[in-house]
Amino acid sequence: MNRMKNSKMMLTIKEIRDASWFSNLTTAIIILYASVLGFKTLDEAAQPYGNILYIFDWVITIYFVIEIAIKMIAEERLRDFFKNGWNNFDFIIVAITLVPLENSSFAAIARLMRVFRILRLFTARPELKRIIDMLIKAVPSIIDIVILMFIIFYIYAIIGSFVFQDLPSGLWSNFLTAMLTLFRILTFEDWTDVMYEAMEVYPWAWAYFVSFVIIAAFVFFNLFVAVIIGEMQKLQEEDMKQEIHEEHEKIDQLLKEVQELKALIKEREK
Amino acid sequence: MNRMKNSKMMLTIKEIRDASWFSNLTTAIIILYASVLGFKTLDEAAQPYGNILYIFDWVITIYFVIEIAIKMIAEERLRDFFKNGWNNFDFIIVAITLVPLENSSFAAIARLMRVFRILRLFTARPELKRIIDMLIKAVPSIIDIVILMFIIFYIYAIIGSFVFQDLPSGLWSNFLTAMLTLFRILTFEDWTDVMYEAMEVYPWAWAYFVSFVIIAAFVFFNLFVAVIIGEMQKLQEEDMKQEIHEEHEKIDQLLKEVQELKALIKEREK
Amino acid sequence: MNRMKNSKMMLTIKEIRDASWFSNLTTAIIILYASVLGFKTLDEAAQPYGNILYIFDWVITIYFVIEIAIKMIAEERLRDFFKNGWNNFDFIIVAITLVPLENSSFAAIARLMRVFRILRLFTARPELKRIIDMLIKAVPSIIDIVILMFIIFYIYAIIGSFVFQDLPSGLWSNFLTAMLTLFRILTFEDWTDVMYEAMEVYPWAWAYFVSFVIIAAFVFFNLFVAVIIGEMQKLQEEDMKQEIHEEHEKIDQLLKEVQELKALIKEREK
Amino acid sequence: MNRMKNSKMMLTIKEIRDASWFSNLTTAIIILYASVLGFKTLDEAAQPYGNILYIFDWVITIYFVIEIAIKMIAEERLRDFFKNGWNNFDFIIVAITLVPLENSSFAAIARLMRVFRILRLFTARPELKRIIDMLIKAVPSIIDIVILMFIIFYIYAIIGSFVFQDLPSGLWSNFLTAMLTLFRILTFEDWTDVMYEAMEVYPWAWAYFVSFVIIAAFVFFNLFVAVIIGEMQKLQEEDMKQEIHEEHEKIDQLLKEVQELKALIKEREK
Repeated sequence: MNRMKNSKMMLTIKEIRDASWFSNLTTAIIILYASVLGFKTLDEAAQPYGNILYIFDWVITIYFVIEIAIKMIAEERLRDFFKNGWNNFDFIIVAITLVPLENSSFAAIARLMRVFRILRLFTARPELKRIIDMLIKAVPSIIDIVILMFIIFYIYAIIGSFVFQDLPSGLWSNFLTAMLTLFRILTFEDWTDVMYEAMEVYPWAWAYFVSFVIIAAFVFFNLFVAVIIGEMQKLQEEDMKQEIHEEHEKIDQLLKEVQELKALIKEREK
Repeated sequence: MNRMKNSKMMLTIKEIRDASWFSNLTTAIIILYASVLGFKTLDEAAQPYGNILYIFDWVITIYFVIEIAIKMIAEERLRDFFKNGWNNFDFIIVAITLVPLENSSFAAIARLMRVFRILRLFTARPELKRIIDMLIKAVPSIIDIVILMFIIFYIYAIIGSFVFQDLPSGLWSNFLTAMLTLFRILTFEDWTDVMYEAMEVYPWAWAYFVSFVIIAAFVFFNLFVAVIIGEMQKLQEEDMKQEIHEEHEKIDQLLKEVQELKALIKEREK
Repeated sequence: MNRMKNSKMMLTIKEIRDASWFSNLTTAIIILYASVLGFKTLDEAAQPYGNILYIFDWVITIYFVIEIAIKMIAEERLRDFFKNGWNNFDFIIVAITLVPLENSSFAAIARLMRVFRILRLFTARPELKRIIDMLIKAVPSIIDIVILMFIIFYIYAIIGSFVFQDLPSGLWSNFLTAMLTLFRILTFEDWTDVMYEAMEVYPWAWAYFVSFVIIAAFVFFNLFVAVIIGEMQKLQEEDMKQEIHEEHEKIDQLLKEVQELKALIKEREK
Repeated sequence: MNRMKNSKMMLTIKEIRDASWFSNLTTAIIILYASVLGFKTLDEAAQPYGNILYIFDWVITIYFVIEIAIKMIAEERLRDFFKNGWNNFDFIIVAITLVPLENSSFAAIARLMRVFRILRLFTARPELKRIIDMLIKAVPSIIDIVILMFIIFYIYAIIGSFVFQDLPSGLWSNFLTAMLTLFRILTFEDWTDVMYEAMEVYPWAWAYFVSFVIIAAFVFFNLFVAVIIGEMQKLQEEDMKQEIHEEHEKIDQLLKEVQELKALIKEREK
């Protein structure tokens, strides 16, 4: 009798967990919470709001605990809950914000950690998971471009930190700084300032900068775009090859029919 | 007799409304008016022109009233005119500019409101409506990227407004300002100035900026381009699937013919 | 006898005109001339080079006259030469540089006009004509985006020149200046400087700038890319539809064969 | 007996050369070496590290010699080794770094030359060779755009260096400087500073700059993207035409079968 009541309650909990309104509610609350947290930073000094925000913070923390409890109870066994990677992700985020650091010396860090609650939007919105998957899938086709880019950056950084080392701006003082300066040039951010400084000492420095801009920025950027578009086309072409495959099968069926027909006629001839 | 004369006049009005010269005339007048309005701001002080522009302004206002009157009369019943969203749009724009605010204290605002007359170009050019439709259709596939972008912006803004809050430039003084600064970095606009300022206090700040530039600008931008191209391909592929579908139907017809033939031969065998 | 000799010479001239070495020679000479002209500006003061360049300039002018003479003589009738638009284009360029303005008061302008000789590369390289054609073909699909862009620019320029008119930088002093400032913002060029100046007086000015950047730059840019890609896909898809069309014809032929077969069998049945 | 032992050793060497762990080891060592070299520049003054880096430098040089020796011995005849372009490339890089310039007056240059060892990554990673091939293949379709770009640059550079020659910034002092300034404008880098300077003397200079930005930057950039995407589509379409070709062949086979069938029935009719 107790067990039956239990399983009925269990069913209700599962229904709640899978309901779209529950997922939408969670999404809305996360965005609302994120906005509140943003304004908290904005008006932290404002005392009258302070209390309201403090209460709101607690309400949301409680909602998160209830929400994760529902998800935990809905599973037959607790260990099933932890088998799903995203559930672990949720659990860690909720657990961290429960640690009572608010009034300790780690309060500032605790508040900062809370920001990562917005990452729970990934759990709430399956479309976001799909985009992340797409980005991850694109990585293998990008990795070689990254290596190529590293080679270009590396050679230019070594040359730059060797030749321009003593320029007063200190933009080429060592290898890592030169790397950062080259990254800045890649984004076209005041790259001529860097060039004109170098040209005052080395009049032919423009060749170094112009060649880097052309090679790194244009070639790399276009290659990057091309790879991503290629990835997309692949997806859509698969869809089309499916169509063509169906057609092939139909033609094969037709061929079989005609051959049977031929065999039939030939047989009767005997 | 009177009714017949009426319906004849009605037909003429309808013809005018649907004529391409009428639509082209309206387009030309709107562009002319927009240019005049632009120069009015430019030479407002110039008195000799002042009067001509004043007259021109009235001529156009009258043309607009006549044009909308033609559109209204051309409908069987006035309520049909207001059923079309674009007609309401036109009516409101014309009505606002008729309100005699020119010499009142709201004159400045009235003049500004008049600018929106250029929006009537949408009513005049169906191609523009099509582009707007295309842009609106692309929104659902962009919405998730916007949310992803919001998450990235949000996390970086919170961290930035927390860590860099006391920098003298005040670019990170609160959450909203940090959001604006990040948007600026996304457009590569003097982002190194922001970075170098932060690096003076926090030498490892470059990791924050470089990672944001790479994650937000590159990943987001490429995804954005990919989505739009995907949208376009979808449209054109539909066109092609149509072709393939026709082919499938032809092959199906062929298969049916061959099977009938087989049945025919088998029947005769008996 | 004279006529025969003439027609033989005519043939030789035609052969020269159509020979690839003649076209390549012209291309090489134009590029060489352009480089010389560039260095002329660079080292104009250098007297020793001066004379050589002066001679080189005359040699090229004479080559151009001979080349155009060959093209003229190669035609049966002179009027055929002028029927081709590109020939007229060549003729005008050569004619202008023949006018003896070098030592007159128009010398500077004459030298400048000569620069346009480089445009003869279009006549020499058919691939360049093809690219220009492609760009011209893309115009109709761009025109509506240009109008849409004009509407966005126009509304923002009017608002900007109205609200920010008195800012000390004078970037919004009148309609045309505001248009130029908006174009600058569209290229992301120091747009935050413009924004921060406006925000000092109007704290909410960021909404104006951020909305313009998002609407104008992103939407427009993506649409622009989309249109060009669309244009390309159209070209390549035509190629593919050709393939599919051939297949349809083959299937139709097959269907006809099968139907004839059926008719044959049915006939025998009688 | 000795020969047999030799050929057995030979086989082992060949196995090592072709083993993926050997190629991976080389890749890892190159990247490690590149990083060490980067830090060497960074901490060159730091004596305690100096010795370790010096030893590491020698260890890598020795590894490179061993690695290239393995590749040389693995070939039946030494001349086969030099037939492969990449092997020559490797040999030259290793040979250069063996020249004992470390303590001579060319020490600085010798150290710089060593940087190019990172180029050996191309030999280690076949994917990088593929990308380089792809980039080289795209050149023919880009060459005409480069020429078109040269024409645009050339005309604007001549006009710019002619009209703006005496501007105090010296950005237009001669043809080559004007070319560099135009390249800067193409990257949108502080192009308004250049424009505003010119507009102070020539108020209509904005037309020169805005037209250059629109023509050069937008048209060129979009064309560039279009060409690369076109190149990609070509590759993938070939893949698809393959599919369609197979289908054509199947339909042809079917047609042949039906025609044979028809011939069979007609024959029997006699």
